[in-house]
Amino acid sequence: MTNELRIAVLGVGMMGADHVARISSKIAGARVAVVNDYFTEKAEELAASIPGARVVNDPIDAIADPEVDAVLLATPGPTHEKQLLACLEYGKPVMCEKPLTTDVETSLAVVKAEAELGKKLIQVGFMRRFDNEYADLKALIDSGDIGRPLVVHCAHRNPAVPPHFDSAMIVKDSLVHEVDVTRFLLDEEITTVQIITPSANTNAPAGLKDPQIAIFTTETGRHVDAEVFVTTGVAYEVRTEVVAEGGSAMIGLDVGLVRKSAPGTWGGTITPSFKERFGQAYDTEIQRWVDAVRSGAETGNYVDGPGAWDGYAAAAVCEAGVKSLESGAPVAVDMVPRSSIPGA
Amino acid sequence: MTNELRIAVLGVGMMGADHVARISSKIAGARVAVVNDYFTEKAEELAASIPGARVVNDPIDAIADPEVDAVLLATPGPTHEKQLLACLEYGKPVMCEKPLTTDVETSLAVVKAEAELGKKLIQVGFMRRFDNEYADLKALIDSGDIGRPLVVHCAHRNPAVPPHFDSAMIVKDSLVHEVDVTRFLLDEEITTVQIITPSANTNAPAGLKDPQIAIFTTETGRHVDAEVFVTTGVAYEVRTEVVAEGGSAMIGLDVGLVRKSAPGTWGGTITPSFKERFGQAYDTEIQRWVDAVRSGAETGNYVDGPGAWDGYAAAAVCEAGVKSLESGAPVAVDMVPRSSIPGA
Amino acid sequence: MTNELRIAVLGVGMMGADHVARISSKIAGARVAVVNDYFTEKAEELAASIPGARVVNDPIDAIADPEVDAVLLATPGPTHEKQLLACLEYGKPVMCEKPLTTDVETSLAVVKAEAELGKKLIQVGFMRRFDNEYADLKALIDSGDIGRPLVVHCAHRNPAVPPHFDSAMIVKDSLVHEVDVTRFLLDEEITTVQIITPSANTNAPAGLKDPQIAIFTTETGRHVDAEVFVTTGVAYEVRTEVVAEGGSAMIGLDVGLVRKSAPGTWGGTITPSFKERFGQAYDTEIQRWVDAVRSGAETGNYVDGPGAWDGYAAAAVCEAGVKSLESGAPVAVDMVPRSSIPGA
Amino acid sequence: MTNELRIAVLGVGMMGADHVARISSKIAGARVAVVNDYFTEKAEELAASIPGARVVNDPIDAIADPEVDAVLLATPGPTHEKQLLACLEYGKPVMCEKPLTTDVETSLAVVKAEAELGKKLIQVGFMRRFDNEYADLKALIDSGDIGRPLVVHCAHRNPAVPPHFDSAMIVKDSLVHEVDVTRFLLDEEITTVQIITPSANTNAPAGLKDPQIAIFTTETGRHVDAEVFVTTGVAYEVRTEVVAEGGSAMIGLDVGLVRKSAPGTWGGTITPSFKERFGQAYDTEIQRWVDAVRSGAETGNYVDGPGAWDGYAAAAVCEAGVKSLESGAPVAVDMVPRSSIPGA
Repeated sequence: MTNELRIAVLGVGMMGADHVARISSKIAGARVAVVNDYFTEKAEELAASIPGARVVNDPIDAIADPEVDAVLLATPGPTHEKQLLACLEYGKPVMCEKPLTTDVETSLAVVKAEAELGKKLIQVGFMRRFDNEYADLKALIDSGDIGRPLVVHCAHRNPAVPPHFDSAMIVKDSLVHEVDVTRFLLDEEITTVQIITPSANTNAPAGLKDPQIAIFTTETGRHVDAEVFVTTGVAYEVRTEVVAEGGSAMIGLDVGLVRKSAPGTWGGTITPSFKERFGQAYDTEIQRWVDAVRSGAETGNYVDGPGAWDGYAAAAVCEAGVKSLESGAPVAVDMVPRSSIPGA
Repeated sequence: MTNELRIAVLGVGMMGADHVARISSKIAGARVAVVNDYFTEKAEELAASIPGARVVNDPIDAIADPEVDAVLLATPGPTHEKQLLACLEYGKPVMCEKPLTTDVETSLAVVKAEAELGKKLIQVGFMRRFDNEYADLKALIDSGDIGRPLVVHCAHRNPAVPPHFDSAMIVKDSLVHEVDVTRFLLDEEITTVQIITPSANTNAPAGLKDPQIAIFTTETGRHVDAEVFVTTGVAYEVRTEVVAEGGSAMIGLDVGLVRKSAPGTWGGTITPSFKERFGQAYDTEIQRWVDAVRSGAETGNYVDGPGAWDGYAAAAVCEAGVKSLESGAPVAVDMVPRSSIPGA
Repeated sequence: MTNELRIAVLGVGMMGADHVARISSKIAGARVAVVNDYFTEKAEELAASIPGARVVNDPIDAIADPEVDAVLLATPGPTHEKQLLACLEYGKPVMCEKPLTTDVETSLAVVKAEAELGKKLIQVGFMRRFDNEYADLKALIDSGDIGRPLVVHCAHRNPAVPPHFDSAMIVKDSLVHEVDVTRFLLDEEITTVQIITPSANTNAPAGLKDPQIAIFTTETGRHVDAEVFVTTGVAYEVRTEVVAEGGSAMIGLDVGLVRKSAPGTWGGTITPSFKERFGQAYDTEIQRWVDAVRSGAETGNYVDGPGAWDGYAAAAVCEAGVKSLESGAPVAVDMVPRSSIPGA
Repeated sequence: MTNELRIAVLGVGMMGADHVARISSKIAGARVAVVNDYFTEKAEELAASIPGARVVNDPIDAIADPEVDAVLLATPGPTHEKQLLACLEYGKPVMCEKPLTTDVETSLAVVKAEAELGKKLIQVGFMRRFDNEYADLKALIDSGDIGRPLVVHCAHRNPAVPPHFDSAMIVKDSLVHEVDVTRFLLDEEITTVQIITPSANTNAPAGLKDPQIAIFTTETGRHVDAEVFVTTGVAYEVRTEVVAEGGSAMIGLDVGLVRKSAPGTWGGTITPSFKERFGQAYDTEIQRWVDAVRSGAETGNYVDGPGAWDGYAAAAVCEAGVKSLESGAPVAVDMVPRSSIPGA
């Protein structure tokens, strides 16, 4: 497919609206073609801000729409089953925010329906698999360099949660990420779960069992523990340490992946080249330049960054530098005053 | 402008080819419409891999092309002056890789030509201004929280350079980034430059004065020193520390911005929410899903990430978790075997 | 007491011999007066190397010796009960390496005997309480600045253990430190213990259940988990994180205590003055100078560090520096050649 | 020499008084025998607090005293020359706080006098050579593992200085440490010095040129730069980075020595065993126990740390742990209440 992917976004609450903005401003090769929400006004308002987007009021109609190539599902969990089955029926690839569905039976039904179709169309939004640090950790495990993982420690902390958040949601909405991380990193299923509820945070809403400690055992008897603490009052922290037979590695300390290995060393890898170090900078530079030029057609301001004057100033300083390189002595920089060039 | 920006990329060596890939795979709202290079074959080969791109053999023709909205200049420095002036002539916004031009006089001529036009069309590729860490450092300075900067220390290290790299190129190609960083962070011009050449690295090519130490003085008498060392054999390292009247801050230690402030504390800011922590993950998730779906039209594989089975497994574990939350005891996870569902 | 404390060291295996060296070379106000060991030759050899030390063959005689002010017990655990009771009988303060005794009943008997005496004479060698990082962590908790601790995570890793080390010793010899750390930090007793034995390290000796995960619950329902892993092959690592109602703090990351607190900051405290930063350097400087002077009475070498020449060289450089401070220009350092002064 | 070294401390201002306390409470094998100060009362007061110390009013008499084995000189710099020469005359080893003397000529005279004596008696108080981090850095350089050092970057920051501190003292009192560090690390003399005075800190006292940047060149042409900034208002920071032909290493980041080496790795060494990790804890434990026992002769309190109850509690928890190790289930800890044993 060489054309832009036309996506229908169903559900434009916080997550859905975020995805609409993401697709419109950061993702190459795709655009939001259809917006749908239970609250029509919200959909209308959002669609109005996205060139080429229109509202379709019924979610199944949006899925079935022939001008829609793929679906992003950010609707409430209870509607997922029906909408996923519609995606399968209409053969539309679908990116479904977690949970797949709200219970095990309907999840299994969706798995079976897709299996019968013989074509994988459903992706679930466990985004941590795409995080650079988790990807590095997974790659380290898969490389075999630290040997077989035996134990995994996780911490998952939020500063606060909305008022309706209850003890079971800590499991289903928060811990669920550690469930997927465990399965992703260890490549095996979890066989038993234990939830420990220590003395609760007195700053948590009354009745909320927070923090919780989860203990997972996996098929080959590995141990995973996860602290989930959603009312820390501090900030957002996600940390995972894998302890393996030949070393250990931790992510989430704000320093990338830190590995400890025999014989007694700790450390990480330095960025090998400017491409890795400044890749984000290049991406941002070009995206913002494109955005500035596109909006500049109307405003006349085509530049969002260093301009010709900055290039001239750099040239003047470097020229002085090359002279000093020869003499070793300080050299004055020779520049015309900026004010001498009106408009510069 | 609601349509995609049609960009002509001039010069498709390492940097230019990188930008072509970037625009095609990561940048929203733009596409490579024209490819140009002195080596026609290289341009042909690259254009063939980019849907909708074509080759224009003459760079000035490419700039003038009515189907081109903007120009990305990645040609050799000596051709920049002529090509930039053509962009001004045809009113095309241009993103020009450093240097603006190869000497001060022609740089000044370009500044003047743009100033006379009365419209800013030229941006120079000093990408560090768009790096998150430099942006954080600039924002910290501008906030006034650490007071007026007095001293800046920079280190800029490369593992190796190409054979033709000479001592003056250390100034013009490497140090030039510290020149722009200094001007960006301190918001004033550099007035004197001194280059110190210590005892050279014996692993450097014969005759290359490496490392070099640059000392800059700025308009208000602030001090900047920069070590540029391009044959370290280690890795790519860029570090900048700003020492101000009310504290100091450093970037490039692989831990984000680290700030030291009165009364005797060091530290940084924890990611406030999952949006900041996993923003990159969400972007990558959606981009890779879009790419998978687009290519899936041909291959039938629409999924690049966790699928329905993963959603089902998570639901089963969470259900066991909620039961354990009630009982406190370990609960076995109840799942059908994956092999019982052919195609799952 | 203004005189030196005369200590009897009982048991001079690895720990005991270490303590003998420590008391003789680092501890002010004390000396090893008596050495005792089941292997008389080992005691004789060690005593011969310590000025003023003599051997007493029977441990009870050593305790009773009127020229002994205090006892350091580093004998095997099974002998502790009898020796501790002797210390109580003779009124000798005793520093007892862990364990107090080898079972609960005899430990309780020792507690009761000391309580009946009405005088505290026994200290147990839980040395972590004296570690600067643990002391900082305890002080932070006691300050109330991070609120009430809810959860504690510990990791305790050794590269290897001796051949006779069995699964129960992981609890009694290794985990025992986390037991004391928990009681020390939380100031309450542990009420339940659970030991989880995940899939074992295949590099561990056959039959050794390693790693082990311990779960403690304390009197007020706080949760502590501790990974003990004694065959990592990597190095020695001890880490403790306290998660409290108002923030969290971790030690053992090789960066001192790192604290995370509202509103979203992480960091530590910078050394306030040279006294803290270089306190260890001053101590070492003076101890090594004292040692050099004491041994110099025989060897004629009284200096272990920078000498007069280094003081002269510093003076010469600083004089040049002061001249440059006035002129701003580089100033040559004026020094006579060292070879011009024979013997300098 | 098997007896304690009897030290005369001359000058008991801040540094001298610190050394008196250090020798009395932390240094094995030495004691303060004589105290001398220009202000007799200060000397009397201090001597009264140190068992076995007495005052000698004339500094030369103190040096000559036959009951004095060695001298610690912490008097003002201008008196050093005369006192050092007296030490040489009477053959007394002397530890001299910096500076050796206050100018180059008298420093050279002292060097010559000692050389003529044919016996090294003088040590200068450049304590950084004894700092663990600097010692690690020196050892790394000497090992050859990072190759030949080419460039050294230093930062030396104080929060504040006393009112009389002037611009030249920044060189002579602060920068002098970087002078010695340079000579220590590179093992060669400094040949030229340049002091750069950027725009001064507006929070510094009027007229104080602070910060200052020093540039040193050494005999083989290596480059050292040092920022000295004595009115930061923040805290005490000392940092040194050595950039060598095969890698670089930095100390002073509060994380020990961090090394970057080919092929692109950063990191440090993990503590190999509990001896290194808890060496300080053992030292402190024993010193505080000795201190407690010594003072306990008067107060009856012989214990400064975990007591018999803590040993009993640990035994009870470990016994429960061993039971849980067998069953895998949580086991209640069986302990008598502490209150059931009066006096425990």
